[in-house]
Amino acid sequence: MRKLYHFPIDPASRQARIALAEKKLKVKLEQIDPWQTNNEFMSITPEGVPPTLVDLVPGGTITICGARAICEYVNEGSSRHPLLPEERSARAESRRIAAWFDIKFSQEVNAYILHEKIEKSFSNLGPTDTQTLRDGREHLDYHLSYLTWVLEQRDWLAGDTFSLADIAGVAHISCLDFLSEINWKNWPEVKRWYQTAKSRPSVQGLLTDRLPGFRAPRHYTDLDF
Amino acid sequence: MRKLYHFPIDPASRQARIALAEKKLKVKLEQIDPWQTNNEFMSITPEGVPPTLVDLVPGGTITICGARAICEYVNEGSSRHPLLPEERSARAESRRIAAWFDIKFSQEVNAYILHEKIEKSFSNLGPTDTQTLRDGREHLDYHLSYLTWVLEQRDWLAGDTFSLADIAGVAHISCLDFLSEINWKNWPEVKRWYQTAKSRPSVQGLLTDRLPGFRAPRHYTDLDF
Repeated sequence: MRKLYHFPIDPASRQARIALAEKKLKVKLEQIDPWQTNNEFMSITPEGVPPTLVDLVPGGTITICGARAICEYVNEGSSRHPLLPEERSARAESRRIAAWFDIKFSQEVNAYILHEKIEKSFSNLGPTDTQTLRDGREHLDYHLSYLTWVLEQRDWLAGDTFSLADIAGVAHISCLDFLSEINWKNWPEVKRWYQTAKSRPSVQGLLTDRLPGFRAPRHYTDLDF
Repeated sequence: MRKLYHFPIDPASRQARIALAEKKLKVKLEQIDPWQTNNEFMSITPEGVPPTLVDLVPGGTITICGARAICEYVNEGSSRHPLLPEERSARAESRRIAAWFDIKFSQEVNAYILHEKIEKSFSNLGPTDTQTLRDGREHLDYHLSYLTWVLEQRDWLAGDTFSLADIAGVAHISCLDFLSEINWKNWPEVKRWYQTAKSRPSVQGLLTDRLPGFRAPRHYTDLDF
């Protein structure tokens, strides 16, 4: 069976998992600790970080690395359950927003909050720096305002249909929600979108992930929070 | 005519320009200073940074923002001069490497070297920090070693054909070469690839860009350096 090397509270890994589940593709999950040497994993992946998908193809396997490549690969595999809108400008908007999460949001939020809370805890990099965490939260507020503005105009992030933009968004936002970093009462538009996204089976599958030393807030798995 | 808002020594803008030129699509270039308020530009772009493409379509125009979205959009516009390989695993590899440049390489090289040399100079953020520059150069060496390893196995970054991976690579490497940041005698494999890429008309078009206060090294425009 195809196999996905992943880390549970990692927005990139979550994108790959949601995309596979949306396409109804079965996958065996293998959890990787990105901060530990893992020779088996290193021998198959060119970048050394999850997600990495090993897919079965006629005559053998192929290895696909990284959220962007995996999502596009999975989407191109069949025309059923498309992950990009049909119309060209909506496709472009979906890819713009997915890249915005992977580049801008990652740099200004994940590199602060996920780094301080998860990476430091797993790689023994010392105590949390509260100023870094505060800076990350300030950036998060700024970006949630931007998403509010986008979602005041549309049902889904890139238009009328769930697409790669929403997969990227849910993957990132759900990791921050796991860490109790989102004060939902301040973000009703984002909450409305996230609630609808959470009700998809592809997203529900992620919400039972646990991480030693962390406790998700009570509303985390609640679809109607 | 379609119009591209760009900044000359910006890897994201350069990707959009190379992709358009590879597809033989004519475009009017409009230079943006990303560090100055520009109301016309801000009114049309959702992210406030170049590249942004305004394309003519039946009934009006559409606006596409960001290197990833523009490159995929341009590629999907016609099947002539494809910018992705036909074979699925090579397509995935091309997208993996393009995303690697946009995320990893940008964070670890551009955020140091382009930030210190270009962004600081244009936005009056004070003198160059030599330690930051040294750190960026150390990361650059590390990543050029990785590209060497990739190019020992292949003619182009993702296989046998020039693709989105090479467009991303050339866009990034040419900005660093403009700033005299690459000591080519240490990187013969990367040089061989870059020389071949530079001979493409789509890339030659970039090499005459100038920036006030900067002087490109003599070999910069030389195809056989």
